[in-house]
Parts: sequence; C-alpha cells; structure tokens
Amino acid sequence: MNKPLVSIIMGSDSDWAIMQQAAEMLQHFGIAYEADIVSAHRTPEKMFAFARTAHERGIRVIIAGAGGAAHLPGMVAAISPLPVIGVPVKSALSLDGWDSVLSILQMPAGVPVATVALNNARNAGILAAQILACHDGEMLRKIQEYKIRLQQEVEQKSIQLQTRLHSPSQQL
Amino acid sequence: MNKPLVSIIMGSDSDWAIMQQAAEMLQHFGIAYEADIVSAHRTPEKMFAFARTAHERGIRVIIAGAGGAAHLPGMVAAISPLPVIGVPVKSALSLDGWDSVLSILQMPAGVPVATVALNNARNAGILAAQILACHDGEMLRKIQEYKIRLQQEVEQKSIQLQTRLHSPSQQL
Amino acid sequence: MNKPLVSIIMGSDSDWAIMQQAAEMLQHFGIAYEADIVSAHRTPEKMFAFARTAHERGIRVIIAGAGGAAHLPGMVAAISPLPVIGVPVKSALSLDGWDSVLSILQMPAGVPVATVALNNARNAGILAAQILACHDGEMLRKIQEYKIRLQQEVEQKSIQLQTRLHSPSQQL
Amino acid sequence: MNKPLVSIIMGSDSDWAIMQQAAEMLQHFGIAYEADIVSAHRTPEKMFAFARTAHERGIRVIIAGAGGAAHLPGMVAAISPLPVIGVPVKSALSLDGWDSVLSILQMPAGVPVATVALNNARNAGILAAQILACHDGEMLRKIQEYKIRLQQEVEQKSIQLQTRLHSPSQQL
Amino acid sequence: MNKPLVSIIMGSDSDWAIMQQAAEMLQHFGIAYEADIVSAHRTPEKMFAFARTAHERGIRVIIAGAGGAAHLPGMVAAISPLPVIGVPVKSALSLDGWDSVLSILQMPAGVPVATVALNNARNAGILAAQILACHDGEMLRKIQEYKIRLQQEVEQKSIQLQTRLHSPSQQL
Amino acid sequence: MNKPLVSIIMGSDSDWAIMQQAAEMLQHFGIAYEADIVSAHRTPEKMFAFARTAHERGIRVIIAGAGGAAHLPGMVAAISPLPVIGVPVKSALSLDGWDSVLSILQMPAGVPVATVALNNARNAGILAAQILACHDGEMLRKIQEYKIRLQQEVEQKSIQLQTRLHSPSQQL
Amino acid sequence: MNKPLVSIIMGSDSDWAIMQQAAEMLQHFGIAYEADIVSAHRTPEKMFAFARTAHERGIRVIIAGAGGAAHLPGMVAAISPLPVIGVPVKSALSLDGWDSVLSILQMPAGVPVATVALNNARNAGILAAQILACHDGEMLRKIQEYKIRLQQEVEQKSIQLQTRLHSPSQQL
Amino acid sequence: MNKPLVSIIMGSDSDWAIMQQAAEMLQHFGIAYEADIVSAHRTPEKMFAFARTAHERGIRVIIAGAGGAAHLPGMVAAISPLPVIGVPVKSALSLDGWDSVLSILQMPAGVPVATVALNNARNAGILAAQILACHDGEMLRKIQEYKIRLQQEVEQKSIQLQTRLHSPSQQL
Repeated sequence: MNKPLVSIIMGSDSDWAIMQQAAEMLQHFGIAYEADIVSAHRTPEKMFAFARTAHERGIRVIIAGAGGAAHLPGMVAAISPLPVIGVPVKSALSLDGWDSVLSILQMPAGVPVATVALNNARNAGILAAQILACHDGEMLRKIQEYKIRLQQEVEQKSIQLQTRLHSPSQQL
Repeated sequence: MNKPLVSIIMGSDSDWAIMQQAAEMLQHFGIAYEADIVSAHRTPEKMFAFARTAHERGIRVIIAGAGGAAHLPGMVAAISPLPVIGVPVKSALSLDGWDSVLSILQMPAGVPVATVALNNARNAGILAAQILACHDGEMLRKIQEYKIRLQQEVEQKSIQLQTRLHSPSQQL
Repeated sequence: MNKPLVSIIMGSDSDWAIMQQAAEMLQHFGIAYEADIVSAHRTPEKMFAFARTAHERGIRVIIAGAGGAAHLPGMVAAISPLPVIGVPVKSALSLDGWDSVLSILQMPAGVPVATVALNNARNAGILAAQILACHDGEMLRKIQEYKIRLQQEVEQKSIQLQTRLHSPSQQL
Repeated sequence: MNKPLVSIIMGSDSDWAIMQQAAEMLQHFGIAYEADIVSAHRTPEKMFAFARTAHERGIRVIIAGAGGAAHLPGMVAAISPLPVIGVPVKSALSLDGWDSVLSILQMPAGVPVATVALNNARNAGILAAQILACHDGEMLRKIQEYKIRLQQEVEQKSIQLQTRLHSPSQQL
Repeated sequence: MNKPLVSIIMGSDSDWAIMQQAAEMLQHFGIAYEADIVSAHRTPEKMFAFARTAHERGIRVIIAGAGGAAHLPGMVAAISPLPVIGVPVKSALSLDGWDSVLSILQMPAGVPVATVALNNARNAGILAAQILACHDGEMLRKIQEYKIRLQQEVEQKSIQLQTRLHSPSQQL
Repeated sequence: MNKPLVSIIMGSDSDWAIMQQAAEMLQHFGIAYEADIVSAHRTPEKMFAFARTAHERGIRVIIAGAGGAAHLPGMVAAISPLPVIGVPVKSALSLDGWDSVLSILQMPAGVPVATVALNNARNAGILAAQILACHDGEMLRKIQEYKIRLQQEVEQKSIQLQTRLHSPSQQL
Repeated sequence: MNKPLVSIIMGSDSDWAIMQQAAEMLQHFGIAYEADIVSAHRTPEKMFAFARTAHERGIRVIIAGAGGAAHLPGMVAAISPLPVIGVPVKSALSLDGWDSVLSILQMPAGVPVATVALNNARNAGILAAQILACHDGEMLRKIQEYKIRLQQEVEQKSIQLQTRLHSPSQQL
Repeated sequence: MNKPLVSIIMGSDSDWAIMQQAAEMLQHFGIAYEADIVSAHRTPEKMFAFARTAHERGIRVIIAGAGGAAHLPGMVAAISPLPVIGVPVKSALSLDGWDSVLSILQMPAGVPVATVALNNARNAGILAAQILACHDGEMLRKIQEYKIRLQQEVEQKSIQLQTRLHSPSQQL
C-alpha cells in the first residue's frame, strides 16, 4: 500500500461509525490514508506528537472528528501547518450537536479549521481529495467524474419518481 | 509576596478586562495569584508546559478564560491534575457567547472543567477561594463574611428603594 | 464507613440514574459520600437546613443535580459556604436540556456554581476529588493515575482500530 | 394608603427600571402594592421569610422579576401558596435573556410560575389585576375599559397613518 | 355538577393527552371545569364567541393549550378580560417546542398570558386553583396541603434512596 | 388612484418603518395598495372584520407584519381566503426576532402564511407582485426587468471593486 | 390530464414523503401539477434550466422543498420570475431542522421565497391554490369550502371530547 | 502581477469590509488573488459561469463569503471541482449570524464547503495558503513562520501583562 497522504483521527472509537465515511470516500478516490484514535483530552501528548510530526511523515491533509466540547480539530490545527478538516460529531452527551459544531467552527483568527456539516464525514473525504487535486490534474478529473455520478444518481431517482407518478395505478 | 496558589490564564490580552475581576476577588480573599496569557491555539507548547507543571510549582487551582471556540480551559484540564475553573468570555467574534459557553462546558466524561457564567470571572475568583477553603477554616470564615456583605448590600439597596417609594414627591 | 466528605443531592429520584455516576467516581477515588433527594421546589425547608449545616457536619464539597428550571445547585450555593458542583440533568420535561444548563450555569456575580456538562455527573465526581486533592497529595496522585487510565483506554481502542483496519478481510 | 394586595419583588435594584412598569399598571388599576429588593441568591433568608408570610400579611399576588439564572420567582412559588407572576429580566450578564426566560418558565410539575414576556413587567401588573378581578366585578370592569383604551390608541394611530398616506405631499 | 369556574380549551384533540393533566389537578382541588376544542386557526369564530362570553357564563380562569405557532392563548387573552393561562404543547410539527413557547410567552404589552412550562398542563391546573384561592381561604388551605403532599412524596423517595444505598448488598 | 389590490397591515405603528418598504416595492411595480394598523391583540374585532371582508373589497393579497408573539398574519390567514404574506418584525421587546419568526412561520397544517425573512418587508412587496403576475403578463415582465436591475446593480458594484483593487495607490 | 400549473420540486427523493402532501392538496383543489427531483447541489444545470423555463411552459407557481443547507428554493427564486413556495424539510443530517428553516427563509432583499412551516408541505399546496385563486373565483370558493371543512373537523372532535367527558364511566 | 491562484468572491459589496481580511492574508503569503462580487441570488448566471470556468483559468482555491440565507459558497461548490472555503458574514438583516453559518456549513453529502468561523475571513486566507502548501514546501515554511509570529505576539502581550501586574503602582 502507498504511504498515506491523509490522516483520519477521531476523539473516541465511537466516532468511527461516522468517520469511516471519510475513509470510504478516500478509497473511492484512490487516496492512501491512515486512521487512528487521538483524544485531545485523554491523550494530549499523543495528540501533540501527532500534530507536530504529521507533515514530516508525508501527510498532506488531516481529517479530525470529535463531539461535545470538540477540541481535537482546533488543537491539531494549532500545532500542525497542514490543513485540518473538522467533522463535528453528534455524540450521545452533546447538546443536539450544537456544542460539537461551535467548538470546531468558531476558531480564532490565525488558526483555521475547515469545518464540514454535522456528522458529514463523507464531505471531509471529498474535501481532502479536492485539496490534493490542487496540483494533481488526474485527481481533479476524478472529482469531476464524481460530480457527474451524483448528477446521474439524481436523474435515476427522477425517472423513478416520474414512473411512479404516471403509472395507471398511481395513488398518492 | 507569597507564592501564588491560583493561576489565572487567558487566551488573549483582550480577555484581561474580564479576567481581572477574578484577580480582584482573590485579592479580596488575600489569596496570592499569578496571571498570564496562555493561548491554546497560538502558544500550544507554552500551554502544555504550563499545564504539566503548574501543580509542581505549588499552584492549587487554575482559572482559565477564553472566547469563541474556547479550548484553553479544557486542554489545561486534560493535562493538569488540578481543578480548572473555566470562564467563557463573550469575545467580539463569538456567536453571542454561545460558542464560548458550549466549548468550555460540554467536556467529555473524564475531564471536568468547573464552568461559571458567561463573562463572570468574579465568580471564578470566589469559587477558587471556596476550593482553597476546603482545608482552611480561616478562608471558610472569609467566604461566610463575603456572603454577609452581599446580603448587606442588598439590604442597603432595599432601604434606598423604600425611601424613594415613600417620599412625598415620589412619582413613578 | 468514614464520615462523608462529599454530599450528592438531587431534585428528584429520577435524577439518580445520572447522579449515581458521581457516586461511582467517588467510590473509585475512595472518598466517603452521602446521597439524598433534596428538592428546592418541593422541600425548600429541607434544602435550607441542608445548605446551612452541611459544612458543620464535615461535608467539604456538594454535588447538586437537577433538571428543567434547575434551582437546587444555585440555591444551595447561595446558602452554603462550600463549593457547589452543579450537574444539569436532561429531564423528560426539559427543553432539550437548555433550561437545565442555563439555570445552573448563569449564576449572578457573588454566587458561583461549578457547572459540568449536561448529564455528566461522572465529571462532577472527578471534580470533587480534584477539589479535595488540593491539600491531599495522595488524592492528587490518584487523579494522575486516573488520567493515565483514560489514556490507556484510548491506546487500547487505538490498537483495536489498527487491527481492524489492517486485517486481510478488512472491508469498510 | 390601603394595605397592599400585590407585592413586587426583584433580585437587584437594577431590575427596578423594568419592574416599575408593573407598579405603574397597578396604580392605573388602583391596586395597593408594595415593592422590595429580595434576592434569592444574596438574601436567601429574607426571601424565605418573605415567601412564608406574604399571604398572612394580606398579599394576594406576588410579582417577582429577575435576570440570568433567575431563581427568585420559582423559589418564592415553592414556598408561598400565592400565585407568583414571573418577569424574566434581560440583565447585562444574561445570554440575550434566554437564561432568564428558561429559568423562570420551565418550573417542574407542582410549582407553577405565571411567566410573562421578557422585560414585560407591564403585563405582570395587568395579570395581577386580572387575578384580583376574579372576585371583584368592579376590577373586571376596569380591565375591560383598559382593553378599550388599547383599542382606541391603535385606532388613533391608524387615523394618523391614513392621514400621512393620503396627504398631497406624501412621499414614502 | 357545579357550574364550571375554569375553562380548559385546546387547539387540537391531540393536545388532550397533555391538557387533561390540568383537568386532573382541578378535580383534585374540587374545582368545576369545562373542556373543549377551540382552534384559533380552524374555528376563529368559535374562538371569538368563546372569548367574548366566557366571563358572562361564570368562568373565572381560562386555560388554553396549543402547539407550533400557538395563537389560541394570546387571542383569547386579547378578547376576554379573564386571566388566561397558556400551556405550550410540543406538537409533532413543532421546532422542538420553541415555537410553541415563544408564540405563547412573548405577548406584547397590554395583553398578558400567564405562561407555564412546555407540556406542563399540571401546573396550569394548580395556577388556576391559586388564582381562585385569592378570595377563598378554603382553597388556599388546599394549596398548602398540596405543597405538603409534594414534600412528603420527596421524603418518601428520600427514605427509599437511603435504604437502597445502605443495604448490605448495595451495589451501585 | 386605482382600487387597491394589496393590503398592508401591521400590528403597531412602530412597524411602519419596516413595512413601508413593502409599499415602496408595490409603488415600483405600479400596484395600488392600502395600509393600516390592525392589531390582533389590541383590536381583535377590527382584525376580524378586516379579514372577513378584504376579498370582497377587491383585495387580492394581504401583507401582514408583526413582532414578538406575532399573531396577526396567522389570524388573518385563518379567517380570509386570500394569500397572506407574513413579515416578522424584530421589535424592541422581541427575543432577537426569534419569537417573531417562529410565531409567523410555524402555522399548523391547513392555514399557511407565506413568510419572508426577518424585517424583509421589501421581499413581501415583491412576492405580492409575483402573485399578481400569475395572470398578468405585463406584471411578469416587470418582475423580469426588476431582476435585471438587481443584476445590473451588482455588476456596477463589481466594476467599482475592480477599479479600487487595481488603482495604483490601492492599499488594502 | 391538463397542463400543469404548479411544479413541485425537491432536492432528494427522500423528501417525497413530505412533499407529496403538497401534491395531495393540489389534487384536492383540482389543480394540475408536475413533480420532479431537482437538486441545486447535485444537478445545478438541471435546476438552472428548470428555473429559466418554468414560466414559459405555463407553470404559475413553484413549490420547492429541501433540507439542511437548503438552497433549492432560493436559487430557483433567483432565476425564475414565478412565486416560489419553500418547504423546509427536517432531513436526517439537519440540525433539528433549524438549518433548513433559516437557509430557506432568510433570503436577501430582492429575492423572496414564500416559506411555510418545517415539513408542512400541505400548507405549500394550499398556498399555491390561494395564489392561483387570485384571478379565479371558482378556486377562491374552493378555498372557502376547505376552511369550512377544517372547521367542521374541529367541531366533530369537539363533540367527541364532550361525549367522552360526560359519559357516566368517564374517568380521567 | 502573477496569475491569480485564489479567487475571493462575495455576495454583496458590503461584505468587502470582512472579506478583504482574506486578501490581506493572501498578500502576506505572497499569493496572487482576484476579488469580485458574485451574487448567487442577483447574478445567478455570472455565478454559474464563474464556477464552471474558475479551474480552467488557473484558480486553485475559491473563497466565498455571504450573509443571511447564504447560498453562494454552496452553489459554487456544487458546480466547480475546486475546494471552496465559505465565510459566513453577519449581515445587517441576519438572525445574529446563525442563518449565515447554517446555510454555508450544513451542506449535503457530496458537496463540501470548508466553512470557517463567522466573519473570520482572515482564517479563509490562511486556509487557502495551507491548501496551496500541500505541494509547495516554500509555502509550508511560510505557514510555519506565521505560526511562530502568532506565538511571538502572544509572548509580547504576556510580557506586557507581567510588567503591568508587577509595577509598583499596579492597581487592578
């Protein structure tokens, strides 16, 4: 397997159900990745070591997911020079996800986190691919193909709806 | 001056306008303190070093204030064994303070932050005194005196209101 | 059994499912505690008597949990000189827990409540231990050990995730 | 002056700017009232004594205003058998008034507080008059007259708007 | 049966599951009541007729429950001189109940609605009894007894918790 | 002047500062309108009479603005068969406008209100024109021209920004 | 079948469960409609083509439903001169529907969307009928009949509740 | 000047006060950029043409700012294969910025927008630099230097605070 370009980290193993959707998208785009549990609050030293060295190991983009008072994406962004994509996770203890969203999104000037929608790790994977595509024409082409696929799926659904609406037995 | 027992830290010098109210309360109770700017996002290594060693330097309680995606109190609580009091600050860029409150309050199981009300650094100072009073009967007495003073202030205001309401010229 | 140092009170017996997590943490740290139902709204006199005398009975820290318009932690803090840890409980009638959080957290200047995250009584137990550790080196050591345990649990989960990701049959 | 039937209490003298609107309405309806500063958090014993004895002194309705974690209306309602009208005040430290509203409104089953809109002490005064009107036909008539006055004010404004819209020089 | 003193109205028959708790409390206090479905939006003329005449039929207090954009309590309060108690109902289509709460609570100056907590029709029943008790010493005594009963229930639960905590086999 | 096709009503004369923006748009499109103050809460009978007869007087669209617990748009929609456009107004007493928005928008099934953005009466005027354009080709053309004008304004601003950015002395 | 006057579009086929309630209301009023899946984000070109030409195909009103960051109604309103009714859908990934509501409702000046309540596609169908009724006396009559039907349903429920309350065996 | 790599677009010229902070950061990092006003709602065709061709013109990253129902970032992300950074702007008409944040952040699966904090265009500029640094070691070095500068600024402020606290005349 190739050396990973993207690192997916998360604050708790319970976040994996969400975060593996990022991994699936990276696989779709043929991007080598690694994944690990790195907790800002329970393993701060591991988090520090990870963030300080990720770019030296060849990582280009970090995807970090966490819930509640979610400090992992912001702390990694504070330490690493790499772009960090933050995925707010709606954890069991969270205030309907608002705490996850605000504590990842509202970073102070100087330390950005590229935040995606609540629980939307799939978009984190796509965004990582778009970032890597900046200097990779082949990857850009894959992104364009993916957009066409999204469009085709909608068109498929559109035909199914038309069929249903115009069938003789159609009853709302 | 005595060796400080309480350390007041804040993410930005603009937080000092709020955080000095904690210092004022500590002075009121005769508690030696130190104060510094320690940013989780801009000086993560200083923050780490601070949190790892505060208890070794004789600090007993940490008061940490921050605004927006406020990670300082939680990160210090992750590293230090000391009790950490968090003060959410309503900074200029914050979402009306909700981001500050939620990113300090909603800590995951295992890493508590003793959170006080938005911008209420005065209460952080009092809470630090109450914590130190656990094994200090003299401090406990001062807390009790402070409560009596609060009560007297209200009674003073009560008399002023009665006077105003019952003066011959009183007009609402 | 030793004389209790921590008192866990709650507004309703339905809060016990949450509040016993505080008791579990105190047991973990070997801290003697008592627990009782004390309702600010339904037993105001019991609440008053409790708050006025807790410190005289040797209690050092009070943990108070309540839901909805949760007045118990704040009222006890108004009367007792002891540090009060407030646990907002997401009760059946609450507005998704926002009422519990705000009516415990947003105390006026002069009367702090050390608020922890919604339903996070476990953190209240840990915070009580940290407060008691202020003058108890042995307790401080236990807190440090607990942090190491948290870290080891994450590392265990990390190894499990690596194993899963690199198994030959791994399919996302 | 007659013996007061309504008692207006508030947690802080800064609340008087809002709460005097309740007094004005009571004066309008010719209802004798008293007003005082009674803080649940700073004068809990005064609050207790007040709530326990108000009905014995001839008070029929209590109007209580407070801001932030506003416990005064609910605590008085817990102790007194009288109907308590709660006025959430948007104080300087509040979270845009949401804390005041939720900590007064969301009382548990068994202990109601008749809550009015944020800062709307005027409505508290009217509601007190309506409560007293339950057994007082003359007061009921005054309420009806007040409603007619409200209606007339709107009709006056309506005529002014029509005049403005249809004046020759009218320019939007 | 006696002539009803309290009228319980609601915007939809689905609100009855909540609103009957008001009826239960009125029965507890021996207060005659009526109940009906009166929709501000679907039966505006019935609502108007109801509100204009309720006081003429001997009704002393109106309890009105509704969900979503809940206009029933406020519209009835606009028309009737009687005190109106509003019960915000968390209906299926509501935005987690916030719409119900705000559209009942935030009435403009001049037209109060005595709002109770979300879904808390029980408190509406108690509040109606307290209003009627203003001129009814016997009812006031019943309110006081009810408060004692609430207190006794808590004490019962307190004993049960103590028993559980101190039983030999007690395991958290 | 022609017979009005659109009626602009508002709960208070203080709403006119906002609501006249609807009038301005109607003037722009050459649509005859009337405007009046009609308060659901202070003039319920006028509101009823207005809503019952508007369509008989030739009115085709109603624009209703109100703030706080804003019942005017919904009540008029309950009574009149005409389309009602609701404008939430951020009034002085409102909870940052959330009460206005939710009590207009969240109408129950059966009684729609076409809600526009907070304080955005201009959009209410445009929407009224679009509704009238359904059977009026000339009006549809005016709407299309208006859209072109919006586009041209942006293009003008775009040129100004380019000029500023590329001027020799441009300094950010 | 007649040429459709109303076009129902939605961002995803999963929205159909909600959006078909609009179709049902249009069928009730005998209004010909079409329905399709048009995603602003996944099929932007289809959306553009749809919005640019809908009025040329004889469509008079567009109903657009979407969830999360719901851009479909606003983008169609930006391009088409027709009135656009927006239905915020509470999708699985949404922040309890708040994102859907705000991203449809809060359109800038110049580009209105007639927004209805969360998930309330039924009201979108009725509103479309009301818009078409502007120049169609027969349709206006149907709207009036529909209002009578709503009223009769409530009266039916009212009778059922009375029967239940007054049956000999009635026990709350 | 070099061919621009980053394109800064915004929905209105009033957004420039915020968005120029992105331009300043890009200048700091020596990255050529362009800036323009592109409104999704008022110039949809310009927006479409922009988004379809930006990558063909050599643009690598798009920064898009907008307020209220902010559709610009999401629509551009729907059409362009490039990474899009979204800046929620707190515009005059917005609901305290919540509408801007949610309508940019909560994009559906398949179409990410890299969202930064409310009004935090500075972070958008830094994030663009980090994205470009993925394949540009020199740029990565500049990012690292910028982080050091942030740290030095804090240390400077720290020294100033220490000086103030320990000056003989220091008075809190």
